[in-house]
Parts: sequence; C-alpha cells; structure tokens
Amino acid sequence: MENANRDLLVIGGHEFSSRLLTGTGKFSSKRLIAPMLAASGSSMITVALRRVDPGAAREENILSHIPDSVTLLPNTSGAGTAEEAVRIARIAREAGCGNFIKIEVIPDMLYLLPDNHETLKATEILAKEGFIVLPYVLPDPVVSRQLHDAGAAAVMPLGSPIGTNRGLEQQPMIERIIETAKLPVIIDAGIGQPSQAAQAMEMGADAVLVNTAIATSENPVMAGRAFSLAVQAGRMAWLARTGLREKYARASSPLTGFLT
Amino acid sequence: MENANRDLLVIGGHEFSSRLLTGTGKFSSKRLIAPMLAASGSSMITVALRRVDPGAAREENILSHIPDSVTLLPNTSGAGTAEEAVRIARIAREAGCGNFIKIEVIPDMLYLLPDNHETLKATEILAKEGFIVLPYVLPDPVVSRQLHDAGAAAVMPLGSPIGTNRGLEQQPMIERIIETAKLPVIIDAGIGQPSQAAQAMEMGADAVLVNTAIATSENPVMAGRAFSLAVQAGRMAWLARTGLREKYARASSPLTGFLT
Amino acid sequence: MENANRDLLVIGGHEFSSRLLTGTGKFSSKRLIAPMLAASGSSMITVALRRVDPGAAREENILSHIPDSVTLLPNTSGAGTAEEAVRIARIAREAGCGNFIKIEVIPDMLYLLPDNHETLKATEILAKEGFIVLPYVLPDPVVSRQLHDAGAAAVMPLGSPIGTNRGLEQQPMIERIIETAKLPVIIDAGIGQPSQAAQAMEMGADAVLVNTAIATSENPVMAGRAFSLAVQAGRMAWLARTGLREKYARASSPLTGFLT
Amino acid sequence: MENANRDLLVIGGHEFSSRLLTGTGKFSSKRLIAPMLAASGSSMITVALRRVDPGAAREENILSHIPDSVTLLPNTSGAGTAEEAVRIARIAREAGCGNFIKIEVIPDMLYLLPDNHETLKATEILAKEGFIVLPYVLPDPVVSRQLHDAGAAAVMPLGSPIGTNRGLEQQPMIERIIETAKLPVIIDAGIGQPSQAAQAMEMGADAVLVNTAIATSENPVMAGRAFSLAVQAGRMAWLARTGLREKYARASSPLTGFLT
Repeated sequence: MENANRDLLVIGGHEFSSRLLTGTGKFSSKRLIAPMLAASGSSMITVALRRVDPGAAREENILSHIPDSVTLLPNTSGAGTAEEAVRIARIAREAGCGNFIKIEVIPDMLYLLPDNHETLKATEILAKEGFIVLPYVLPDPVVSRQLHDAGAAAVMPLGSPIGTNRGLEQQPMIERIIETAKLPVIIDAGIGQPSQAAQAMEMGADAVLVNTAIATSENPVMAGRAFSLAVQAGRMAWLARTGLREKYARASSPLTGFLT
Repeated sequence: MENANRDLLVIGGHEFSSRLLTGTGKFSSKRLIAPMLAASGSSMITVALRRVDPGAAREENILSHIPDSVTLLPNTSGAGTAEEAVRIARIAREAGCGNFIKIEVIPDMLYLLPDNHETLKATEILAKEGFIVLPYVLPDPVVSRQLHDAGAAAVMPLGSPIGTNRGLEQQPMIERIIETAKLPVIIDAGIGQPSQAAQAMEMGADAVLVNTAIATSENPVMAGRAFSLAVQAGRMAWLARTGLREKYARASSPLTGFLT
Repeated sequence: MENANRDLLVIGGHEFSSRLLTGTGKFSSKRLIAPMLAASGSSMITVALRRVDPGAAREENILSHIPDSVTLLPNTSGAGTAEEAVRIARIAREAGCGNFIKIEVIPDMLYLLPDNHETLKATEILAKEGFIVLPYVLPDPVVSRQLHDAGAAAVMPLGSPIGTNRGLEQQPMIERIIETAKLPVIIDAGIGQPSQAAQAMEMGADAVLVNTAIATSENPVMAGRAFSLAVQAGRMAWLARTGLREKYARASSPLTGFLT
Repeated sequence: MENANRDLLVIGGHEFSSRLLTGTGKFSSKRLIAPMLAASGSSMITVALRRVDPGAAREENILSHIPDSVTLLPNTSGAGTAEEAVRIARIAREAGCGNFIKIEVIPDMLYLLPDNHETLKATEILAKEGFIVLPYVLPDPVVSRQLHDAGAAAVMPLGSPIGTNRGLEQQPMIERIIETAKLPVIIDAGIGQPSQAAQAMEMGADAVLVNTAIATSENPVMAGRAFSLAVQAGRMAWLARTGLREKYARASSPLTGFLT
C-alpha cells in the first residue's frame, strides 16, 4: 500500500497526489464543484478560459469554487486554429491562471474532434514561451512523438469523442502511444464509467481526465468518489501486475481426490 | 456517500458490508490470506472442503487464517455430479463450516465448466435441508429462474472460465439474468482485472467473487485492495447512474464566442 | 477451388451442397421464398409445423413454395416442454415432412431462449425413434457433449437471441463447442449480417442458419445471395487458413533503399 | 441482383467492376499473382515502385504478371516524408505506371503507421500535377476532409496496422469518416479475414484493399476468391439494408396455439 501512496503523477516537474483530473463543465450548479473535488481527491481541474471572469461576483466566478490546493488547468476551448489557441493561452496566463495549459483545437463541430497538426503547432509555440503544455489529440503514435519533440509536458489522447461516454474506443492506438511515448499519457474524453477509467490505468496510462460522466450523473459527488476509487484500483492493479489472460481454465480449488 | 455505506448485500437473510467475495485458492502462502482480507474488506470467503483439515496444525489449517468476522462459504469443488455435491455439503456443515454452501459441479476437465442441470438438482436437495445455497453456473436465464424456484439464495454465473482472467465474456446472458432473476446475482470466475469487477457492478450485479486474479498477482494484498475499490466504484456508479452512451459528441466546454 | 466444391456438409448421413440453412418465417410474401432459395443455393430450410397445412390451397400451403431439391427441416416451434416437442415431431413425420427435426423448446417469452435440459430429453427420445435430430440450444459445451451421447445428428447453438441480429455474442462458448463437439455445429439465431455468417465459418462452424436477417431485409433475394456468398467466403478462408493475428505490423511492401 | 451488377466503384472518373483491391507483396511466388487476380476478379492492384524493374527478365518483372485489364496502383512505399513520396510518384509515372498513385509516408518502423500531415502535403502537390491520388492514413475525420480539399480522389484509412490481420480496430473513426467524407472510402491494411472485409462493406465503405491475408494464406488463389465473395456479400447487404440490431428477441416461427 505504501508504494502506491508514494506513486505520484509528475507533469512538468510538478507532483500530483491524484491521477484523476476533473473538469468544470456541465455541472447543474457550480456549488457541486467543491464537494466533488473533496470527494474525489482530484488535484488538477480544467476550466475553459471563457468561464473565467475575474470581475464577476464571487458566486458566479468559477475560480472561487476551486480550492487553492487544486491546480488549475486552463484550456483553449473555442479555438479552431493554432493561432487562436496560442492567443487564449497567453490571455489565461496574464489573467493569473498559471503556466499549465491544455490545448484544444477543434474545427469539427459534429464530432468535436481535434486537429492534431494545428495542436502540434500551438504546442511548439507555447512550450517555447515557458508554458507547461498538455495537448489534447486524436490518438496517433506518430503525432505523439512529434509532440514530445515540440516540448509537450504530457499527451492527452481521447478515449472516444467528448461527451459520448463510449470509453476506450481508441484502445489500440492508445496502447501503442503508451508503449512508445516518452511523456505521461493522460486519457481525456469519452470515459463514461469507472470501469473504463480503471481499464485505462490497467493499460498503463498515467492519469485520466473525467468531466461529463461526473458532472451529468444523478449524484456528481458520489460519481467523483467512484471515479477516484476506480483510478486508484486500476493503478494498483498495474503495479501489482494482476490478470494475465489465459486461454484455458485453471482451477482455483482442488478438483480431484476430495474424499479419499 | 452515506447511502452507499448503508447499501448492504443481503444473502439468505444475512447482511454483508462488502460486495467483494474472495477465495482461498492459489495463494503462494496461506499467510497472505489474512492481510488480503484486511486490505480488501471482503466479508465472505470461499474455501474448498478438501482444504479444511480440522486436525491439522494451526499453521496448516486454512480456517485459522480466516478471521471470525468473515463468513465462510464452503464450496463443493471436486464434485462431478449432484450426488457428490450433496455429500460434500453435508460433510462441510457437520465439520462446523456453517449453512452457506457454494455448489460447484464440474464434469468438464478442459474448460472446468459447470453442469447446470446437476447443479440445479443439488440446489433443490440442499435448500430443502436448510442450506443457504449459492449455485455456480454457466449463465443461462432459464436455469436462473429454475434455481430461484428450487430455493437458491443467490445465483453465481461465471464471467468466463475459471482462472482465465478473460472478464465478462458472458456479458449478454449475465445482463439478461440481472434483468429477470429474483435473486442476488454474484459474478464468479473469470474476473481478472479491477475494471472488469467494476463493470460487473455497473451492469447491476449485486457482488463479485475474485480469487485467481488476487492470489496470483505479484502483490495479493495490494490486488485485494484494488478489487475492493473497483467494486465500490462500480456500485457507486450504478447508484449515481453515470455514463449513458451517446452517439455524437457533446462539448463539456463552451465552443463559440470566446473572445467577443 | 475444386476442394471447396467437394467440401460437402454431412448431417445424419445426408450430403448438402450448401452450408447456409434458411427459414420460412417473417417473409412479407410467401412468393419470395422460392427465388430466395434459388439465389442463395440453400439446400435445407426450416419450417414450423404450424405453418404446414396440407389441406390449404396451393398458394397458401408453404410447402408448395419449397422445391423438392431442398430438404425440409420441420421445427418444434411452440413447444415449451420436451413432451410437447416430441408430439410435434411425430405429427410432422406423419404429415410427410420426413425424418429431420429441429428441436426448439422455448419456455421463455421475453428472450425466447431455449430450455437446454428439456431439449436434451426430447433429443434422446426422438433419436431412438429414428429421427435425425438437430437440437437448438444456448451454447453450453457440457450440454453439447450430452447431446452427442443422446444421439443428436448436429448441435445448433444460438449466436445471440433469435431475431436480434446481434451476431456472435456467444462466440467464446461456441468456440469451445467447436473444439470439443463430435458433431456438426450449426450456428442458429442472431446472425444479422453476412460478415457474422462469414465469421462463424472462419471459426470452424460447419454451417449457419439465417432466417430473420434475410426475410426482413429490403430485398430478401439479394440478401439470400449475400449470405450465401459470405458463408462460402468464410468456409474458404477456414480451408485456406487465412489471417493469423499479429501484434506488430509487418510491411507488405519494401520499406528501405528504394532509390539506391 | 442486376442492381448489384451495375453498382460500380468510381475513382477519379474511372470505373471498376470489383470493390476488392489487391496487392503484390509477400507472395511466395510471383506466379500466384495472375491466378489470384483471376479468381478474385480484382480490377486494381497496388505495387511498390521498388518492385517495378522494366529492365528485368520477363519472369522477374512483376508487371508481366499483371494482366492489362487490371489497373496498376503504384505506391510510394519506402517514403518517410512528403518530398520522398512526391519523387517516387513522379518516377512511377515516368516509368509508365499511369496516373494513379497510392501515397504511403511511413516514418514509424515499429507499427508502420503513416504520417498523416506529410501525406496531406504530398497529396496536395501530386493532385495539382494531375495524379489520381489515393492517400493511406490513420483514420482521422478532420484529416479526411482536408484530403478532399487537397484534391484526393479517395481516402484509404487503415483498419489496423499493416500485416496484423487485426481487422477493423479503427471502426469508430472509420464510421465517422464514411459519414462525413465526400470521397470514396477504401479500407486498407489490417483486414485478415473475409468477415472483416464484409463488415467494412456493410458499414458503407466503398472498397477494401487486401494484400497480406491473401498472399500469406496457405492457398492464395482460394483466399482471393474468398475475399472477393465477402466483399460482394457485404456490399449486397448494405444495398439490401439487412440486419438492424434488436435488444429483445423476436420469434421467426409462431410460438403459440400450435395444436389447437
């Protein structure tokens, strides 16, 4: 157990006690965010710059619902090109949101899929400016290596399109990224059930980001706790190397000679 | 969270705080069983009658490794017919193992699959004798209803053949059993990863039994803890109704008008 | 190619040129049956005794739509017990439908799943009376061996519940039946697409029965042809041993030194 | 059936009678290529420029094994950048291989995955030079639309890494490409069984390219025939709209009142 406790996530030189990243979107009330963070233990949360309004009243300002102990991960939601993403990132830093930035460049309004090449371009520019860059991409092992060379601090491949709760549709390419990337791999988007979060960790992912499935459940605080436990479970399983698949059955109880 | 704490598993009128059942087989050392039980919080453990040797020295007697607070679930491992299963069950009760009995009737030495009809016959006999009967079966909704009528206290459909770690291969029929059975459904055999245990609970199973994957991992205590967290995570997700699958993406952050 | 042409299906000592069995249910018009049979080349077709009405006018009598070259496989649809299935089988033979009989014993009106044990009982009785018995079962390797011992001429495990078009949900148990059964294995029910029929044959099934997916398509004649081609394709692939899965990529074209 | 016969594949204004494209790699003997083409009816075949050696003796020259009726699709195998792909394409045209070109840009020697962005750059250049360009890509709906805008004549997303026979691992993104691309979609790489080829066509793909699974089977001529039948079967199923999946069973035979 102690090994697991010291098993920290490290991104851009910063240590995080939890491998569950969360988000601020889609909650029926902003007041659910703080108790969800407390129940889940999540230590990093993403927020769209658009939602950050420093001049707003305390209740309306989303930042007032996030404890200081939780690291802010502003994202470039709304950007359709590298240039737009770069502009949003700079504004976020000037607004006091810190050096972390999640790059989202989404030109596709049907499936909300990212443009990997524009994301790569923005990564290169922002990494040179000292940002800790976490690019959100369609899983592509070739692009993942290019992101490393461009200075990314982690890679965030999607499990399935955002908000679909379809889980690890992209498992084959994610596995190949985990095998070859020299960066932390954070699965982001599409994770709809704790089992899927656990599965990502069992495959060797370094962390997962879950937003929609927590925020839109009937009980976001309990859901946050559920995903937190699942991420821990999956990580422990990976550390303890459980579950090699077998083709044929193997008895767990003795099958012969029982009453000799 | 409090709802989850009072969300007890009830079998044969007995309440259990944990929805993770464990087993005693395949551990490299019997001394791992007690700390695994402590780490996992499992409150019911299955043991083959063959392994119960009341005359053995303390260290060798498997029962001495199981705390009194954990309910014993003797199984009829080794039986190939209903008649043999009935004999083993009676011996177990006489030996002081209590009223719970897990029926295993396995004539198939390649895949170790149960004989559903012989299992049904043994269930009927033993339920009449006052046993709390948990039959282990190949998932079959028709047989599950017959087991209910025969007096079973729960039904234990296999996820995949024992010891294979292949997970919920039998998901379609298990889902149909959960939809129609009037009994608690405990998934037993084949669960090799915490994610699979969580998935079973998200589907609406009442509990899971995990033995091989815990006992044969590199760290059975950590693995026990991992499965425990996963079972809780899956149960909470089911209670909080997370994760309806969507065909099309839905943004979690605002996508338009970000810099107007 | 010639090997494939002599690769006949043999059931109960009778040879069949096609490995696609079809059915008479659900067609919008009985007049579609004969051209569907011609397009598909199917040489065995199942018919519910209920539909056989020797006294009916030619157009209404379903038998008048089935060419003499196609073997009739009457089924016991409507039976809920072994006894009922036996009665239907005897009536069918007396009505001149021949010795083949497909046993269906279905007590479950929600999922329409068979009762394996009642099916086994009926098989034993009818095999002794000289019928060529094809029992329809939920895939269960233990029951499959018992059916062999009871005199069945083939075993017909379902791919998924009848009429669902969900394909080979039961693939794991079907594979185990194919590995161990000493009988021809005919996948019956749930096959909704030609790809699923091909997959069954690639796994080593001896034949498939397709009814709903052909009868309810927009063009049953073309659909019959499609399933026929798929069954041939899958069988040829099995004979030619195509497609061992590889974990890593292997180039099909030379990758280096192209312009030296 | 007649509709199916007139259902031609059109690429770059050219009509093809078969929706199965084949390749020349990995055959144990070049002499197998011509009979494989005859058995499969494939009317387009890809060949690495490296293999084209106009000065070779007739037996050694791969072009001598391809009938004039079959269209040559030279590929840029060996290219690691857009620039190299462009050079190979120009050489191929000058060598008399025609206007068709399949662009392969593969910098990844472990998984042999393409670089989508370099492929896009080469497409743009070669389309302007009058080539009929078929780019081979990791399935990405955003890139697919960019390829259309760059002048591609079709898009060739991979099913799974080349030579793995793992089938349609990339099904979710391929489905999204089929829904949104304004180009013919040809699934290329990873198809190892006829069932997988049929499945691609049932999903609405316009064609498939199969090389490894045919060339390395024990009987490439029979395998070519098998894939040809499967492609036709899948296409017919798509045209006849077979197989909507149902959650609950629907009887194909009458279930009640059989002996009233």
